[in-house]
Amino acid sequence: MSSTMGLPVTDVTACCAPLSRESLSPENAEALARSMKALADPARLRLVSLVAAHDGGEACVCDLIEPLGLSQPTVSHHLKILTEAGFLTRSKRGQWAYYRLAPGALDSLARLLVTI
Amino acid sequence: MSSTMGLPVTDVTACCAPLSRESLSPENAEALARSMKALADPARLRLVSLVAAHDGGEACVCDLIEPLGLSQPTVSHHLKILTEAGFLTRSKRGQWAYYRLAPGALDSLARLLVTI
Repeated sequence: MSSTMGLPVTDVTACCAPLSRESLSPENAEALARSMKALADPARLRLVSLVAAHDGGEACVCDLIEPLGLSQPTVSHHLKILTEAGFLTRSKRGQWAYYRLAPGALDSLARLLVTI
Repeated sequence: MSSTMGLPVTDVTACCAPLSRESLSPENAEALARSMKALADPARLRLVSLVAAHDGGEACVCDLIEPLGLSQPTVSHHLKILTEAGFLTRSKRGQWAYYRLAPGALDSLARLLVTI
């Protein structure tokens, strides 16, 4: 660890506690792995991308079924995982729930990865 | 999709084909999910972090067993997954294999995430 001695701890503003340059704590590793697992699925990555690219950066389940080629319950299940993990926000209007990218969530994850 | 109309396609130099701002293709989503799954494990995230923080940015299995608190076969298994996924490089010297962070691998993944 001598190569990092004397260096300041990197300042990361993200969901998790700042990571030191020396090594990722078991607690931060658990949190980061949980967050990455929520996103590390082809359908969920495409959902995030589709929501981001949709008119006004907002989409309801009804907009996502056809481009994804999956059933409504499956799409809803993936949207729930992404919302609970903090990657999407959900707001109910009328009979539909509308989803948006949670501001800064992907940027925070990307910043954490490059500070490992 | 009107919010992205007229914007140039983002130029990403990474393992996968460049992603358009409109949506992630099924093929790119599969590749990105595979890469993220290789990293989305607490032990593997800590291994990457420990290798990066080790003297000279290089470590052998023998350096990683004690800080990780896992057996040598388990550590070797995780190192194999990380090497096959392109996050670590491996070079054999004498009886030990030494691991380093693959240059740019975490940066490429981080860049792909923010271009979703």
